[in-house]
Amino acid sequence: MSRQRKEPASAAVAGVAVPNKPHTALIVFSPSGKRGQFPVGTPVLQAARELGVDIDSICGGRARCGRCQVEAVEGSFAKENIVSSQDHLSDKGEAEQYCEQRGRLRPGNRLSCQAKLLGDVRIDVPASSQVHHQVVRKDYEARDIELDPVVHLYFVEVEEPDLQTPEGDLQRLLRALENEWDLTELSWDLAMLQSLQHALRDGKWQVTVAIRYGHQIVSVWPGFRDRIYGAAVDVGSTTIAVHLCNLSSGEVLASAGAMNPQIRFGEDLMSRVSYAMLNPEGAGQMTAAVRTAISGLIAKTAEQANISAGDVLEITLVGNPVMHHLLLGLDPSPLGTAPFALATDRAVDIWASELEIELHPNARAYLLPCIAGHVGADTAAVMLAETPWMADDISLIIDVGTNAELLLGNRERLLAASSPTGPAFEGAQISGGQRAAPGAIERVRIDPETLEPRFRVIGCELWSDDPGFADQIGENGVTGICGSGIIEAIACMYLAGIILPDGSINGEAGDRSPRIHSSDRTFSYLLHDGEPRIVIQQGDVRAIQLAKAALHAGARLLMDRMGVDHVDRIRLAGAFGSHIDVKYAMVLGMIPDCDLEQVSSANNAAGTGARIALLNRASRLEIEQRARRIEKVETAVDANFQQHFVEAMGIPHSTHAYPRLASFVNLPIAAGPSARTSAGRRRRRKEP
Amino acid sequence: MSRQRKEPASAAVAGVAVPNKPHTALIVFSPSGKRGQFPVGTPVLQAARELGVDIDSICGGRARCGRCQVEAVEGSFAKENIVSSQDHLSDKGEAEQYCEQRGRLRPGNRLSCQAKLLGDVRIDVPASSQVHHQVVRKDYEARDIELDPVVHLYFVEVEEPDLQTPEGDLQRLLRALENEWDLTELSWDLAMLQSLQHALRDGKWQVTVAIRYGHQIVSVWPGFRDRIYGAAVDVGSTTIAVHLCNLSSGEVLASAGAMNPQIRFGEDLMSRVSYAMLNPEGAGQMTAAVRTAISGLIAKTAEQANISAGDVLEITLVGNPVMHHLLLGLDPSPLGTAPFALATDRAVDIWASELEIELHPNARAYLLPCIAGHVGADTAAVMLAETPWMADDISLIIDVGTNAELLLGNRERLLAASSPTGPAFEGAQISGGQRAAPGAIERVRIDPETLEPRFRVIGCELWSDDPGFADQIGENGVTGICGSGIIEAIACMYLAGIILPDGSINGEAGDRSPRIHSSDRTFSYLLHDGEPRIVIQQGDVRAIQLAKAALHAGARLLMDRMGVDHVDRIRLAGAFGSHIDVKYAMVLGMIPDCDLEQVSSANNAAGTGARIALLNRASRLEIEQRARRIEKVETAVDANFQQHFVEAMGIPHSTHAYPRLASFVNLPIAAGPSARTSAGRRRRRKEP
Repeated sequence: MSRQRKEPASAAVAGVAVPNKPHTALIVFSPSGKRGQFPVGTPVLQAARELGVDIDSICGGRARCGRCQVEAVEGSFAKENIVSSQDHLSDKGEAEQYCEQRGRLRPGNRLSCQAKLLGDVRIDVPASSQVHHQVVRKDYEARDIELDPVVHLYFVEVEEPDLQTPEGDLQRLLRALENEWDLTELSWDLAMLQSLQHALRDGKWQVTVAIRYGHQIVSVWPGFRDRIYGAAVDVGSTTIAVHLCNLSSGEVLASAGAMNPQIRFGEDLMSRVSYAMLNPEGAGQMTAAVRTAISGLIAKTAEQANISAGDVLEITLVGNPVMHHLLLGLDPSPLGTAPFALATDRAVDIWASELEIELHPNARAYLLPCIAGHVGADTAAVMLAETPWMADDISLIIDVGTNAELLLGNRERLLAASSPTGPAFEGAQISGGQRAAPGAIERVRIDPETLEPRFRVIGCELWSDDPGFADQIGENGVTGICGSGIIEAIACMYLAGIILPDGSINGEAGDRSPRIHSSDRTFSYLLHDGEPRIVIQQGDVRAIQLAKAALHAGARLLMDRMGVDHVDRIRLAGAFGSHIDVKYAMVLGMIPDCDLEQVSSANNAAGTGARIALLNRASRLEIEQRARRIEKVETAVDANFQQHFVEAMGIPHSTHAYPRLASFVNLPIAAGPSARTSAGRRRRRKEP
Repeated sequence: MSRQRKEPASAAVAGVAVPNKPHTALIVFSPSGKRGQFPVGTPVLQAARELGVDIDSICGGRARCGRCQVEAVEGSFAKENIVSSQDHLSDKGEAEQYCEQRGRLRPGNRLSCQAKLLGDVRIDVPASSQVHHQVVRKDYEARDIELDPVVHLYFVEVEEPDLQTPEGDLQRLLRALENEWDLTELSWDLAMLQSLQHALRDGKWQVTVAIRYGHQIVSVWPGFRDRIYGAAVDVGSTTIAVHLCNLSSGEVLASAGAMNPQIRFGEDLMSRVSYAMLNPEGAGQMTAAVRTAISGLIAKTAEQANISAGDVLEITLVGNPVMHHLLLGLDPSPLGTAPFALATDRAVDIWASELEIELHPNARAYLLPCIAGHVGADTAAVMLAETPWMADDISLIIDVGTNAELLLGNRERLLAASSPTGPAFEGAQISGGQRAAPGAIERVRIDPETLEPRFRVIGCELWSDDPGFADQIGENGVTGICGSGIIEAIACMYLAGIILPDGSINGEAGDRSPRIHSSDRTFSYLLHDGEPRIVIQQGDVRAIQLAKAALHAGARLLMDRMGVDHVDRIRLAGAFGSHIDVKYAMVLGMIPDCDLEQVSSANNAAGTGARIALLNRASRLEIEQRARRIEKVETAVDANFQQHFVEAMGIPHSTHAYPRLASFVNLPIAAGPSARTSAGRRRRRKEP
């Protein structure tokens, strides 16, 4: 895409005449190190362009946008054989002073479009003036995002119409874009055309144009404008999260989340598909609900950022196949039964208005590709955030939800599968189970001697045996146990001998503690004697066993297909992945054996992937190609999956598979810092 | 565009084995004369394709569409060195018999996809089986339309999904289109995707796909389908006309017209522009009104044709610049003041739903390009219908409305202008004037001796002095005088000496007839003494003088620019052009001198142009290119226009300019047949 306004042919020589000085001067740019001799009077921006130095501009050298600002570094640089001085640039003219007064020019900086070369100079191009600067990701172990959104702004002056040349407004705009920015073969649409007439006249024939993919004109505003906005949307079956971004800086301006209102039609995915199959209007109701929710969240973030939702020009959306289909108004029914056929497995690029999401009238929506019937655009986004194809090491990436999506591979080869874990890891189908929300037990420790438990609750910093816990937990009290809580509870019960390797609760442990109850020939463990009572039942253990066996079997199946017997690193994506203490996951045999240092949370990788697709144009093509080429493994029809599943039911299902676990199991289980903090520490890559 | 389904590689040899016969046979196609030797057993369709013979097919050789039917001609053809017999084709199989029973196969015809070559044969390809057959135009002197609409149908069988290849429905559809029809690089959109899932399943994985411009998938239906529909819409400032067409045959299935409901916001164009300028919601109201009217007319024609408006996939629209802008939801205000800037002068190709016109959810709308601020898409359509660029002769094409649009030129060069005639020719601003509607006087004769008038009224076959006129005219009576009536009245008044060459009504003629009244120092002529009284006032003569002078001056200006002093033919487009008797137009000096045989009506050329753009894909590109290249002449800023205008005020403004008129003026003005009939006779091209 052209980001360089063409200079009029005469500009190259129309400089400031400086008598008794050499006719050319040396300019050296940092950090690129690019250098060259130019005629005295050459604007710095023009020298940069000729040398291929990456400097941004929206206004095309009209001293309006402030994007091209640079610093002339004072000093003598032997290495560069140059004496650089700010005096070697022309004085600040009116335009620059105006820009300075409006706060667009940082102290000491110059507009490279205005400052002209008078003598040798070293010019520092700050990161914010580079077109493709890096947006720092907070995630550990992640590369930064190169900022190159699909939409860019171009300021142009359009010829006024006259009687002699009865050309349309649009044709004069197109000519200005070609003459000033070398943009040709541009497409446009009615919404843009409808705003063009007033934009041109209100802006006195000066307008700023937003162009998408370098060829689609999506908006035109009167006068100069330098901000464009976009939103990354992660449509989960439980929650929807929106991140509003400044597309010029990459900055996240505001974030908001809400429950997915489709929950009232069905708690989990399959019950929503059933609702659609049983009710003729069902899919339509769920489509309307999720679209309204997204519009509401975008409006909320826009308000936080003090902009209008109508300023949002681009959104990216990710979600599992059922969320993806409902959002698009497609029938999710085929996803409910074999062969689980998607309507499309390609990326979808449409008007946001087609999704009834209220943004700029001409905003576009981009949905990442789904990979297979159970492996959706959310997994594609996780791939994009994790880029397993950039490493030689073999990564296993697990996104735990109602199903677990699994990605395995490296630079050479990538495989994907979905494993039918059911919703137990999300706290569903567990007695006393609940979603991860304030009041839910999320951490559990059990003293192997006394069998007494301690726990922590979401929304409270203290452990249950810390002084003041009852006060801090307040009236709400302990409301249930979430996925990470049940995992730790069962793992600790196993380590304390309350659960046997086959998963049955050991009635004999009842001799050691009154917390072991017997009822109907099965046993249970009383974790919390409050209102409600939180009891780990035999059925809860079985549900977790089934779920973890499915997860483990899926991972094993992929490893078989890839022909490997271990993985180098494991990344756990999603809310579950960021809450769980991986030690306990490994105690239960949820994940294959791996150096604990190499098991970490990928946090909200799906949301991050959506944000990458929003901020970096090339990432879209990359994920589209990767998603098409990835090897899809269908667990449902593979006999080996059944075999692995049966073998993985025990705890730990196969001790020799976990050589590294032996030492851990013998370790005293310390209360330690919160798992989130310790996970954070583990996540840091070791320095070589 | 590919209209040839690819045959499976094996089909070429998978024929019927015929012992004791030669291994190849000769096939000769008529009318093309193409011929070749093919292996016995080759299907006729395949031989046609290999020889480049143009045979249609939707179903791709599956014996479903009946489009490929041909006739085996019996006989011995010495010239072709062939003895042809129906027995030289394989017998009708089940598929053909089924097609025959459903009435898809005409008696004696064969499906070329089924009939296999057994011996030498001559095959006649009827016009209806040719892909690009001609659609006959009723207009005189017009070439037929080559049928090649932008949308074509393709029947395909799509692979069913399976667990092993988790491809989306869309990807399997795309593969089928590529494999069967060689269609690649297809685009699609959400509306199509939303209907695809059910179409595939309801059609048992057989669907018919509508593809536009050879690359846009616009619709998919379950099973086989062979009809697609389109509508051509002429949006006039007074009336809107819709022609519903079968895009497979080119046939007009139904037509409907209605008053343009924008009339309630302003009778003529400039009053509507003023309404938009004075009322913030004005343009929006007029936009909504015209869109609703178009939807209603399409629904009406669909009902007449016994189809659903939802079956209409494509519409073309033409109108003058103000109609064009209001239809698109663009602000018409800039068209009201110099420099009369259009929003765009290019063709507009959008979703019909963007115009809120109720058709197929994915229907597209195509608006022909506007040429200049006063020369609209209706003039572009007239150009397309008249194709002045195909002749060496110089044509002057005049479309009379509130303004007159003028086209002048030939193969070498084309010029366009608009002339500010005002609405007098439409009966507006004339005392007793009205639109051409039942009750309006449309023909006038005045006896040069007695000065007594006779006239005809729209809706009545008789002249006013015929016996029974009063009975036939009925209660409604004579309501006013329309444009053609006022032209003839003034021309006859001039010929009878009631009007002098300078346009003043001759008071002295009052001595010869009581119909000449004097009032306020001006005179008038009583045309009809009824209720209302129809009187030709001095002011009416002045209004027509101004209008005709403007029209004439516009034509002269174009002739000056082109460097010619005469034109070879004149075509009068629009309702006015089809009603007027050109002799009287020439008496008044409305049009330049021209052989009367070469002056004719182009009837509804704008509507015909819209229909051509609907039925023939190449015509769109042609008119887009022609419209861009045509030389636009702005009358408002040309001093010569003023000069011509002043000179053209007299009647006839300059006798030497009309050498041919002299003999006519001296002719007794016979009552003769109705002008429409006589114009019809004149219109017929002389046989060489």
